Amino acid sequence: MKAYMDYGASRPVDPAVLDAMMPYFCDSHGNPSSFHSHGFEALKAINIAREQVTALVGAEASEIVFTSCATESNNLAIAGATIRYRKRGKRVVISEIEHISVINIGKELSRQGFEIVMAPVDETGIVDVDKLGELVNDETVLVSIMAANGEIGTIQPIKEAAEIAHSHEAIFHTDATAAAGQIPLEAATMGFDLMTLSSNDLYGPKGVGALYLRKGLRLKPHMIGGGQEGGLRSGSENVPGIVGMGKAADLMIRRMEAEGERLTGLRDRLIRGVLDVVPESYLNGHPTKRLPNNANIRFSYVEGEALIISLDQLGIQLSSGSACVAKTLEPSHVLRALGLKHEEAHGSLVFTLGKDNRGDDVDYVVRGIPDVVSKLRAMSPLTPPELR
Amino acid sequence: MKAYMDYGASRPVDPAVLDAMMPYFCDSHGNPSSFHSHGFEALKAINIAREQVTALVGAEASEIVFTSCATESNNLAIAGATIRYRKRGKRVVISEIEHISVINIGKELSRQGFEIVMAPVDETGIVDVDKLGELVNDETVLVSIMAANGEIGTIQPIKEAAEIAHSHEAIFHTDATAAAGQIPLEAATMGFDLMTLSSNDLYGPKGVGALYLRKGLRLKPHMIGGGQEGGLRSGSENVPGIVGMGKAADLMIRRMEAEGERLTGLRDRLIRGVLDVVPESYLNGHPTKRLPNNANIRFSYVEGEALIISLDQLGIQLSSGSACVAKTLEPSHVLRALGLKHEEAHGSLVFTLGKDNRGDDVDYVVRGIPDVVSKLRAMSPLTPPELR
Repeated sequence: MKAYMDYGASRPVDPAVLDAMMPYFCDSHGNPSSFHSHGFEALKAINIAREQVTALVGAEASEIVFTSCATESNNLAIAGATIRYRKRGKRVVISEIEHISVINIGKELSRQGFEIVMAPVDETGIVDVDKLGELVNDETVLVSIMAANGEIGTIQPIKEAAEIAHSHEAIFHTDATAAAGQIPLEAATMGFDLMTLSSNDLYGPKGVGALYLRKGLRLKPHMIGGGQEGGLRSGSENVPGIVGMGKAADLMIRRMEAEGERLTGLRDRLIRGVLDVVPESYLNGHPTKRLPNNANIRFSYVEGEALIISLDQLGIQLSSGSACVAKTLEPSHVLRALGLKHEEAHGSLVFTLGKDNRGDDVDYVVRGIPDVVSKLRAMSPLTPPELR
Repeated sequence: MKAYMDYGASRPVDPAVLDAMMPYFCDSHGNPSSFHSHGFEALKAINIAREQVTALVGAEASEIVFTSCATESNNLAIAGATIRYRKRGKRVVISEIEHISVINIGKELSRQGFEIVMAPVDETGIVDVDKLGELVNDETVLVSIMAANGEIGTIQPIKEAAEIAHSHEAIFHTDATAAAGQIPLEAATMGFDLMTLSSNDLYGPKGVGALYLRKGLRLKPHMIGGGQEGGLRSGSENVPGIVGMGKAADLMIRRMEAEGERLTGLRDRLIRGVLDVVPESYLNGHPTKRLPNNANIRFSYVEGEALIISLDQLGIQLSSGSACVAKTLEPSHVLRALGLKHEEAHGSLVFTLGKDNRGDDVDYVVRGIPDVVSKLRAMSPLTPPELR
């Protein structure tokens, strides 16, 4: 028995996506900038992909820029807009629980003289809209609030956040890496100026991302060179990758609703199953305002890494936080923002479900966890006698 | 009959490379940062690829950073080193015929207060080492000279250029996008501090590149985020792409010598065939110090774009310059640097040969070109009577 529940860290490419990509590796391999039939074919392929991504997020084709990953989209969006419009003000407001790339781009901007202000979240991990309203002022050039957090699953009030930003003429960016394809996002109607998208999070290939850029908005390019992607992203286009992201977006449009319901069912079965059986286990994040595929559960007196290694031996793959920051072995800044203590944040597991998970997998995981937790607790000097 | 001779703009992925990539799309799809078996498998795969790229360029594995393309490698290398070591001086020396990404990164650095100095080339397109020696001084922080030019094929005196840079304690970068896999490059013995590599130019997938970074050298990262690639290139790794680049490098090591001889033969057959038959046609670049796969031929009284469209209808794909700047429709800055006039630069064709070309293709192209050139010349008011 196996159960991969780390779709937040990495997703398999959908076989239909891979099929769509295949012709562009060996046969139709042209450079979209080439002035001949092979080039035109490649250009046509990336334009179709652009329309497909467009359709997922309620944009126009001219508003989508392909990049190499969500991290690059965040770099282009946040640094690109902040520097381009720096005359509007020096303040940049982001939430405490943004992806590490957004946090670290903020640090770089603060070295360049910008003032980075962190908007707090409540204990369920939802950005406090009132406090955000107090932090955004007329000196604010950009506000960046993620659409949903990939680690604790909380869905953020981004429509309200965009309104707050716009009431002060600030630009609004949302990192929709974890949310896109899971919950409906309509860039135009929801008031986004910039939105980050990741291909792999849609079951597309790794090495591709996109940035929605509202018509009329300008950016300082991040990747400098031959002026591809309307001058915003230089470098020869990754044609098979872009084709794959387009196909993945296209599939997601049709599957999102039914798959969201299915995953919500599995998620709740998993949460109830674990919390009912394991003493001193708690759900991190919000009970209902969370992504259909995300469960984040805290176990007292256990180290997350030890849990992960033990569960891996049972064929269960999970994460103890974002894979993006796993290498640091620091406790998650997201869990710390909820007010959790260092040791509490360390004892958490992130379950991110996906297309190949079934009820059987969930039951297997629910059966496996209590034993693993008990064994690890028995080894810890901190565990109270009644839990041994 | 078909003849694709635009390998400089885009190469098909080698089928063996695609085979090597395939397991990493759907099955072994882990995130190398994940702390479980799927993650370890992905990490192992990219480390093998790192060793393979290492072997192609005489480096150590710790000296290779994977990026999303050669343009990104150039951004990371040139901006990253120049800004990191800015205290060493404000001067950056590049050649006049660098890739557009290097030229444009230079422009951006000049806006940031650096002094960008262009080293000239002679009329064959070889960097003038004496003049380079005069331009590099103790105020120079970085020298960037490409290993070979992809458009005119000239192989540059980079060992000498590196020595000049080092004699002033400047950092030496070479863009080896067009050269790697065609001519031997040994980073350690040839004195490179930084070297840009492209996957697709090795018959690897698009959307991947690498940067050789000499041990001990530090860079300001270009892509900010979760700290992947030793902190130098954030963003979840493109595992299938990296595996593909590794495999492509591995194949290239074994094939380079024989394939170089084969392509040199085809190249010379092509050059002689065209020059012998078409009046007022000339070879751009150096007659012998050129890449095995490159021929660049100038036809008086003809527009390159018109030639390309006409030849495309015969199934022959070529370029009139670098695809990277084709969109601008400006005459090539490379040909202008050779001293060619605007109209001369416009009437040039770039032939870049590759693995699927055979003697038949060359003969087909040699047979096709005279007729096309004659027809276009007949339509031009500038053509002298004797050529009509």
